[in-house]
Amino acid sequence: MTLLYPLDAELDPDVRLRLLGTKASGLHEMTALGIPVPPGFTITTEVGESFRETGEWPEGLETAVQGAIRNLERQLGRGYGDPNDPLLVSVRSGAPISMPGMMDTILNVGVNEATIPGLVAKHGNEWFALDAYRRLLQMYGTVVRGIGSDRFQFRLAELKTQRGQPRMADSELPVSAMRELVSDFSSLIEEASGSPFPQDVEVQLWDAVRAVFASWDNQRAIRYRRIQGIAEGIATACTVQAMVFGNTGAESGSGVAFTRNPSSGDKQLYGEYLPTAQGEDVVAGSRTPWPLTSTGAAPGKETMTLEGASPEAFALVSSYCETLERHFGDMQDIEFTVENGKPYVLQTRAAKRTARAAVRVAVHMVHEGVLSKEQALLRVDARSLEQLLQARLPSDADLAARGIEAAATGLPASPGAATGRIVFHADDAVRWAAEGQDVILVRPETSADDIHGMKVAKGVVTAAGGMTSHAAVVARGLGKCCVVGCSSLQVDFRDKTLTLREPSTETRLLREGDLLSLDGSTGKIYAGALDLMASATVEELAELMIWADEARRMRVYAEADTPQAARAALSYGAEGVGLCRTERMFFAPKRLFAMQCALIAMEDRQRRHWLAELERAQREDFIEIFEAMKGRPVTIRLLDRALEELLPEDEPSVRAVAEALDLELPEVAKASDRYRETNPAFGHRGVRAGLTVPGLYDMQLRAMLSAARECTERGVTVELEVLIPMVAFTSEVVALREVLDRVHAEVFTSKPKGFVCRVGTMIELPRSCLIADELARHADFFSFGGNDLTQTVLGVSREDANRFLPLYRNELGLLVGDPFTILDPRVVEMMRIALERGHAARPGLVAGLCGDQGGSPASIEACERLGLDFVSAPLAQLPGARLAAAQARIR
Amino acid sequence: MTLLYPLDAELDPDVRLRLLGTKASGLHEMTALGIPVPPGFTITTEVGESFRETGEWPEGLETAVQGAIRNLERQLGRGYGDPNDPLLVSVRSGAPISMPGMMDTILNVGVNEATIPGLVAKHGNEWFALDAYRRLLQMYGTVVRGIGSDRFQFRLAELKTQRGQPRMADSELPVSAMRELVSDFSSLIEEASGSPFPQDVEVQLWDAVRAVFASWDNQRAIRYRRIQGIAEGIATACTVQAMVFGNTGAESGSGVAFTRNPSSGDKQLYGEYLPTAQGEDVVAGSRTPWPLTSTGAAPGKETMTLEGASPEAFALVSSYCETLERHFGDMQDIEFTVENGKPYVLQTRAAKRTARAAVRVAVHMVHEGVLSKEQALLRVDARSLEQLLQARLPSDADLAARGIEAAATGLPASPGAATGRIVFHADDAVRWAAEGQDVILVRPETSADDIHGMKVAKGVVTAAGGMTSHAAVVARGLGKCCVVGCSSLQVDFRDKTLTLREPSTETRLLREGDLLSLDGSTGKIYAGALDLMASATVEELAELMIWADEARRMRVYAEADTPQAARAALSYGAEGVGLCRTERMFFAPKRLFAMQCALIAMEDRQRRHWLAELERAQREDFIEIFEAMKGRPVTIRLLDRALEELLPEDEPSVRAVAEALDLELPEVAKASDRYRETNPAFGHRGVRAGLTVPGLYDMQLRAMLSAARECTERGVTVELEVLIPMVAFTSEVVALREVLDRVHAEVFTSKPKGFVCRVGTMIELPRSCLIADELARHADFFSFGGNDLTQTVLGVSREDANRFLPLYRNELGLLVGDPFTILDPRVVEMMRIALERGHAARPGLVAGLCGDQGGSPASIEACERLGLDFVSAPLAQLPGARLAAAQARIR
Repeated sequence: MTLLYPLDAELDPDVRLRLLGTKASGLHEMTALGIPVPPGFTITTEVGESFRETGEWPEGLETAVQGAIRNLERQLGRGYGDPNDPLLVSVRSGAPISMPGMMDTILNVGVNEATIPGLVAKHGNEWFALDAYRRLLQMYGTVVRGIGSDRFQFRLAELKTQRGQPRMADSELPVSAMRELVSDFSSLIEEASGSPFPQDVEVQLWDAVRAVFASWDNQRAIRYRRIQGIAEGIATACTVQAMVFGNTGAESGSGVAFTRNPSSGDKQLYGEYLPTAQGEDVVAGSRTPWPLTSTGAAPGKETMTLEGASPEAFALVSSYCETLERHFGDMQDIEFTVENGKPYVLQTRAAKRTARAAVRVAVHMVHEGVLSKEQALLRVDARSLEQLLQARLPSDADLAARGIEAAATGLPASPGAATGRIVFHADDAVRWAAEGQDVILVRPETSADDIHGMKVAKGVVTAAGGMTSHAAVVARGLGKCCVVGCSSLQVDFRDKTLTLREPSTETRLLREGDLLSLDGSTGKIYAGALDLMASATVEELAELMIWADEARRMRVYAEADTPQAARAALSYGAEGVGLCRTERMFFAPKRLFAMQCALIAMEDRQRRHWLAELERAQREDFIEIFEAMKGRPVTIRLLDRALEELLPEDEPSVRAVAEALDLELPEVAKASDRYRETNPAFGHRGVRAGLTVPGLYDMQLRAMLSAARECTERGVTVELEVLIPMVAFTSEVVALREVLDRVHAEVFTSKPKGFVCRVGTMIELPRSCLIADELARHADFFSFGGNDLTQTVLGVSREDANRFLPLYRNELGLLVGDPFTILDPRVVEMMRIALERGHAARPGLVAGLCGDQGGSPASIEACERLGLDFVSAPLAQLPGARLAAAQARIR
Repeated sequence: MTLLYPLDAELDPDVRLRLLGTKASGLHEMTALGIPVPPGFTITTEVGESFRETGEWPEGLETAVQGAIRNLERQLGRGYGDPNDPLLVSVRSGAPISMPGMMDTILNVGVNEATIPGLVAKHGNEWFALDAYRRLLQMYGTVVRGIGSDRFQFRLAELKTQRGQPRMADSELPVSAMRELVSDFSSLIEEASGSPFPQDVEVQLWDAVRAVFASWDNQRAIRYRRIQGIAEGIATACTVQAMVFGNTGAESGSGVAFTRNPSSGDKQLYGEYLPTAQGEDVVAGSRTPWPLTSTGAAPGKETMTLEGASPEAFALVSSYCETLERHFGDMQDIEFTVENGKPYVLQTRAAKRTARAAVRVAVHMVHEGVLSKEQALLRVDARSLEQLLQARLPSDADLAARGIEAAATGLPASPGAATGRIVFHADDAVRWAAEGQDVILVRPETSADDIHGMKVAKGVVTAAGGMTSHAAVVARGLGKCCVVGCSSLQVDFRDKTLTLREPSTETRLLREGDLLSLDGSTGKIYAGALDLMASATVEELAELMIWADEARRMRVYAEADTPQAARAALSYGAEGVGLCRTERMFFAPKRLFAMQCALIAMEDRQRRHWLAELERAQREDFIEIFEAMKGRPVTIRLLDRALEELLPEDEPSVRAVAEALDLELPEVAKASDRYRETNPAFGHRGVRAGLTVPGLYDMQLRAMLSAARECTERGVTVELEVLIPMVAFTSEVVALREVLDRVHAEVFTSKPKGFVCRVGTMIELPRSCLIADELARHADFFSFGGNDLTQTVLGVSREDANRFLPLYRNELGLLVGDPFTILDPRVVEMMRIALERGHAARPGLVAGLCGDQGGSPASIEACERLGLDFVSAPLAQLPGARLAAAQARIR
């Protein structure tokens, strides 16, 4: 077992990543690049694994750590525990997989009563020495002894109140108060944990190392790994690194820098800097930091910047950023500390960014010659592209015209817009979302404990924090719209209310469950619901999409149920319509009414009348869709909806149907009952209804074929693919083809030109997977229905899955991921069986995936591995699907 | 291609069956046994197949048939078409698979104006000659020319009316009327079909042969094959046989004989005889025939018998029966015709019989040394044994005590009892049954066109017909209770009413939908619904079951949800309880109430209280079941019911729950809503509810284990198998085992003696089949849940399947058989995948099938082929399951 490596050790990158974790690997690379990094060493993940298993340190670790500390002392000329010139260290976690903020860190290890005078003397700053001490006490207390951090915060707040200055910043506390605080925190530790804070710096060090390794298994980290689908069985590494101090005075501070703008992708240094602060003060968002340069500042306000205050430090940080971005071939996000004017880099990593920024940075970097096209394609998270088509609120002008004003404004932390009901706790967000509510999570600020709530919320609002606060960073990663630092917002947790006190508007009190809208691109918050609109375009996306289309093998079709959607699909680059759900054409009230009359009609004559009405409407739609798609394949699925969902339910509807059909109300009710079912999703729907409800599929097929005839007569080429839903038996396909042949003979008197008609079957039941060989003999193509196949393979009704699947995923840890978004491996296995059998019976059989999963990159990757010919994605996910198909092919 | 064989040709039995069909094979065997069979020849199924494909006769057939006819002429000294002594022939269908009454037959072929005088002279009976002629005209008209037989019947009825005797029997028509009838029928044929009846006997013969071959593809036959699951692709043979005449005078007649009593199985000749009649008159049930002997007569009535009227003929028929039964090693049912005192046998086949008769005959034949035990086991239809445990009506004494009298009495044609709603058409029976109604099909008499209705009816009643009428024979075959020849019953088809005019009671008018009860063992019919009771025992069954238990490999368990059921299961020979559905224990109102309180409770304390209540109740039940099963395995399935089905629904229940929990009514409603689902069968049920509803499975496991503890402390051995329902993920089993381990540690402080506890998982979702290898590592055994596996593999909700599956089976011919009764082959395939994976991971893994299919012989055969270790059958199907398991093993 390898025990530890100093930061300047040379190591194979793969071994380094596995043994030292991502964070320490970054420190190693930076050290090698000559960027100033405080020296230190990393105890390996192997030690972590062994400690996790046995609860004890492996042989020789103590000696090795002592040796490494001695090296540090030699390098810096300070002594660990030396009262004259003490070396302080940070003890940090870091696993091979990035788990930001999930595990623990302790800073300033090595401060005690004995070393305080030396620190004061060295830095000529008593306040600083006491600040380092009180920070150590708090971190040690919370991380090692498990004392709630609120208890330390409470002491601090109490102290400020006693001094009559409850709103004073920490950095403004006088030295006398700092002394009192140190004493307070020391007693708190002893009281709360039954044992005093260890003055022995060796004990401090080993306590800290142990706590950092143990934090791999804290609840927060376990939940995070579960949610992210990170395998157990590995462990964290632990880096011990000399402290540099951002809190030694006005010439010191800590900051975060992005090598480009993480929101827009513009090539400009972007970030925040907090003078007289250690790193965690910036991330925690408890004080509002300076921008690095005036470019990054909120528009229209004059503020302090690092560039203005310390131009030399700023220049150094800028040059480090440039070096790092070029070295890693990706936009970086660094943490740095300026100690008495000299910047040190504490961490570098690939920066989280908005979808817009990701696309623009990737394309720009190809133009800059830094990346190849294939590399650039892999740099963009395909899931995030949906954000680019993401909803936004109506324009300010529109809103103003309607007399709607923002109730408050914060920082635009993550773009997009959302409307939903207010909740104040992450757990509530999960619960409400499980009940189908759109929710907006409102928090004073967020922490790692809130992530499960942020995932399910439509948007996130925090009262405190800056553009690099936890809430902002996580929201951007999740593609959630987010507004932070909304200082006019006051949250009362117990009452579950929030007060909006924007000076320009009246104060509003909102409660849990009230509607709130927000715009993550402007930072504006509105009381009530606003209608969301489609979003603006990113120029670079077109270029990226061209590269993606060149790289991918699978065709990407769109789900489009209306002519409007078909036109939009084409503009999003769809190669055809992969799924036109004809049932959605019945949503318009007039059509729904005709459908209801056709279903309820007692007499053939009546039924035929209303079906003819529907046929006209569908025919018009089909003509428009064929015209829009200009000869590209249009896959139209025959009606597939539980018939009971189409029935007249409210009294006016029932009455209208009764009048139209000349029936009594109870007759309509009785006729409706024929269609009601216990488990409608598994009942009389799809081809089952098509073959047993007289005239239904005839009507639809006639509408398709006569639309095709009209188009071809006008010279518009039509490639029609008729899709049969819910096939369980080969005989269903045979029977349906007979109907189609009959209708075809009725519609076309001669062989049509410019018209291709194929018949495909949905493969969405395990039985149809198993009889795929038989089906392939009667169907021209297969379309896997991911949603129904998931429902039947798992035996889980999608509509009811929220009763337990979220609990399975989050609370109970029984399940990773949502099988209705990412194809379950066993669903993929059924698909593989179907493909093998289908291809054996008909070599070259065309097959693809449709449904929501068709837009999910992970599912698209599974489809590439299965060798499918196409995926059909929801409109908003089309660009993402094209990119994902390319990525899957490249990988 | 072989064209034809004379009836006395020697042939290998298998080839014979395939080429000539069952009926002709019987004639061959009888000829070989020296039993008088009219001579003839059979045109092979190969000719039938070729004709079906090409529509033409194969080369050489005409010549071969002419040669065979010449042989017949030589043998009998008559000439086909010879005006002096004409040979008449019958032309009959007959396939390798028996399809009784489905295909066509034409008798008396060879009669024409020219041969009539010869016939008259030969038989000295003009009436007979004319009768033969009018029969030929009617059969030719209907079968060859497709004229509705009602049109011939109408002419006949008109004639009787013209002569002022509308109720006259056909045999009483004077010669003058017969002449008129012949002339009438001839004109009808010419009018209706546009072409006269062919006087050329060669044309008659070939028309008849062609019609018989074509009748394989009539609607009735196609539907029958579909319903019976008979493969297409084969064809019928056609037998041309010299006519013998049951209608030449009083010394002639036709009859049907069973070698034993088909109802009781007693060794006594049983049957019916109709003087001056051709065979079809007996089967059609249009005149009421004589019994063969007085033993078979309805009790208490003096009637004519064949034995009394023609003792010699009776003795000959008896001896033929004995020969045939011994030769075939099975009870036979023969058709015979007596021509001028001499009996000829026209057909022999294995007799349809009641379950009671089947069991008794099989056992008796072993005792008689005719059959081996294994042969005897194969002689009994395992499905039919359920009839032996079938419901019957309360005893006459009971009914009399309650003042209930029979409204009418008919012949007890097929035992059992039924209560249901009256329908008058087979199609109505299907429709009503599809809506979940129990129906009684009431018909004047039945024909092959009614079989689909008889299959779905609970019972069948006919006004006409004897014990061997179509209705009686088919009902016995189907195991439906049936009363025939109920002459006091008058059916008005148009008005859909029936009038019961029993002399002793008042006349009653019943309408479609009214309730009717019948007792197929007594022939009594009651207006209204009667409660059904369990049935009496058959002594021979015990012996047969011993042989079955010796022969079978699979263990047979019972489904038993209560202590009563467990005791019954043991008495029916169950080797254990294969499925105890704990949810059924909550049906008692008090328990349901406790369950509702536990589900609705807002406070932990309340929930715990009501769960404790349930625990006590379940514990008591489990103790009783363990005691009843005396150490045999008891498989208890954890709660598996859609929770919404347990909620308080009506106002008093909601109020009671609200009071018990101190809640407002809307609070109860709101809490209930948490459990309501769109597709409850695929939602929050089984282990999904068990892992997410606090305390539920804990309670059940504690009840099981503490019951086991109490039993073992009393010295009762307990073999408990805990079954986890609806498993989709391995993590569910792991989590559940953790709960079990915890509860086990709570209940047992030391290792219990005499107690075995195993944990099994239901395999009832495709996903669980696919992860069977993982599951096998965590589960001790598998139990396939046929019902849910069918639901998910087919994507068909069982509760809604009746909307389309019956139409698929009957009207549309898309499906054979009910997959919820007989395992669908693709469900079996999923089971095979699961077994292969499960056994690979854990060799020797025990697996079985439970659910309704566990009682179906066809499913049990599939299980034997899969190598399952056990099946678990519903109580009533236990004997059948034991027999089926033996048969599957023997086969």
